[in-house]
Amino acid sequence: MTVIGLDVGGTTMKAALTDDSNTLVTEFRPTDRTDPVGGILDFAADLAVHATTLGTPARAAGIVVPGIVDEPTGTALHSANLGWRNVPMRAMAEERLGIPVAIGHDVRTGGLAEAVLGAGRDAHDFVFMAIGTGIAAALVINNTPYPGVAGWSGEIGHVVVRPNGEDCACGNRGCLETYASAAAISRRYDENVPAEEVIARAENNEEKAQHIWSEALDALADGLAATTLLLDPDLIVLGGGLAKAGPALLTPLETRLVVRLKFRPSPRLLLSNLDDPAVKGATILARRLLA
Amino acid sequence: MTVIGLDVGGTTMKAALTDDSNTLVTEFRPTDRTDPVGGILDFAADLAVHATTLGTPARAAGIVVPGIVDEPTGTALHSANLGWRNVPMRAMAEERLGIPVAIGHDVRTGGLAEAVLGAGRDAHDFVFMAIGTGIAAALVINNTPYPGVAGWSGEIGHVVVRPNGEDCACGNRGCLETYASAAAISRRYDENVPAEEVIARAENNEEKAQHIWSEALDALADGLAATTLLLDPDLIVLGGGLAKAGPALLTPLETRLVVRLKFRPSPRLLLSNLDDPAVKGATILARRLLA
Repeated sequence: MTVIGLDVGGTTMKAALTDDSNTLVTEFRPTDRTDPVGGILDFAADLAVHATTLGTPARAAGIVVPGIVDEPTGTALHSANLGWRNVPMRAMAEERLGIPVAIGHDVRTGGLAEAVLGAGRDAHDFVFMAIGTGIAAALVINNTPYPGVAGWSGEIGHVVVRPNGEDCACGNRGCLETYASAAAISRRYDENVPAEEVIARAENNEEKAQHIWSEALDALADGLAATTLLLDPDLIVLGGGLAKAGPALLTPLETRLVVRLKFRPSPRLLLSNLDDPAVKGATILARRLLA
Repeated sequence: MTVIGLDVGGTTMKAALTDDSNTLVTEFRPTDRTDPVGGILDFAADLAVHATTLGTPARAAGIVVPGIVDEPTGTALHSANLGWRNVPMRAMAEERLGIPVAIGHDVRTGGLAEAVLGAGRDAHDFVFMAIGTGIAAALVINNTPYPGVAGWSGEIGHVVVRPNGEDCACGNRGCLETYASAAAISRRYDENVPAEEVIARAENNEEKAQHIWSEALDALADGLAATTLLLDPDLIVLGGGLAKAGPALLTPLETRLVVRLKFRPSPRLLLSNLDDPAVKGATILARRLLA
């Protein structure tokens, strides 16, 4: 049975049509910054048409969005980035598509995909940290991402790791993502140079790049040490764009985490090996509606 | 039915005999620093005799200890303070007492008491933070303290709030409990003056005391902000000796927490209103063995 999985990012929407075991179609579309909700519904409807033209009509959809999400009611409560409040996303999408729709939070749903299909599938309790334009985490407890009481859990990007440090867009100072997000690494080096290139230059012993990348790694290790001390996870899975740095991220972060955890063992660190955890997770949410 | 609840602290053991709704007896005994396990078993056995002399033999016992505890097997895995490793506490106590025994972690069991009887009884998901000689937390999720994968959760006292700050006994620097535990407040002011007196002097506008207390409150707020951003609790319950400061702790901490949480609401803060949450929790563990 075919389902739709759709992940709404700040600049790009990604989607897939999958049947029970295969991805049939992958599509991308720019996020509509003027009417993001309308753009999401249009994209989902076009995917449904596409599925029908393939001869396998979509039976359910999972749509995952950033910000604050109430999964049980399918409400997108708030996204500062996309400028919405209290959008009854599930009801709107079900009316438009005529099939059951599940709404999820992007990072938590990525964590679900890691739990079911990815690096976390042998761990019951782990943390999935997505490092991209921002930094956020899914706290997976007993194979299920834990949303907190109001869908605000996992905001590790705004944990202060440098008191009185650099200004963060959130209004605070010294937040983790001010030093270690892909956007921050680029901004702190030269905003015309993407983070992956900064890391490559650091690997080639370019001094300024090394300094900025080292500060990012220190900040990430501080954030993960705090997370480990509070939650005692079995495993931390690193995802998002920055995880494409591979061993250049993983190896120095492992070393730094061990140094910070003086009296307890360090959890395992793994890189995500899923292409699009949030899209894959969205298809899992959709498929569960049919189970 | 009478049960035994016993809380093992670093210097004092506290215990109670309770029947279904009342505390029959409360007892204290110094912790045996030379043979702490022997001291625990002797105390528990004496409590069982006491119950029998009252005409209501104890039917079960709950014993809660610090350090790392594996609750399912009843093993006290490690306590740096009491110097034990891999003690099969449940098996030893059951053999000595001849009744079912549950073993728990002191702070998590305090959190359980708050969930069942205390300030957390109207909240499903909350954090109980015990501020005493050290600082540790119980993460209560769906009314159950979450131990982490290996019983190491809730070590908020060792979250670094002041990078490169004062030396902590754990080997790291700048840990929360280096600034904000009762022991730290006393040590930083004058080790002959207990923390409660430092707080009283701060309330009376004594400059040095105000400075140290303010630094402790800032550190506590930093630790609680990080905890809130990660876990999104409904409520934070403040317990341990320092919570006896009452509004002198609660009011400035509420203010500081709101300031730190720029983009999300602050969880409620409440003071524990249980006399001995860990002892009460130990009796709950015991009673559940009979359910």
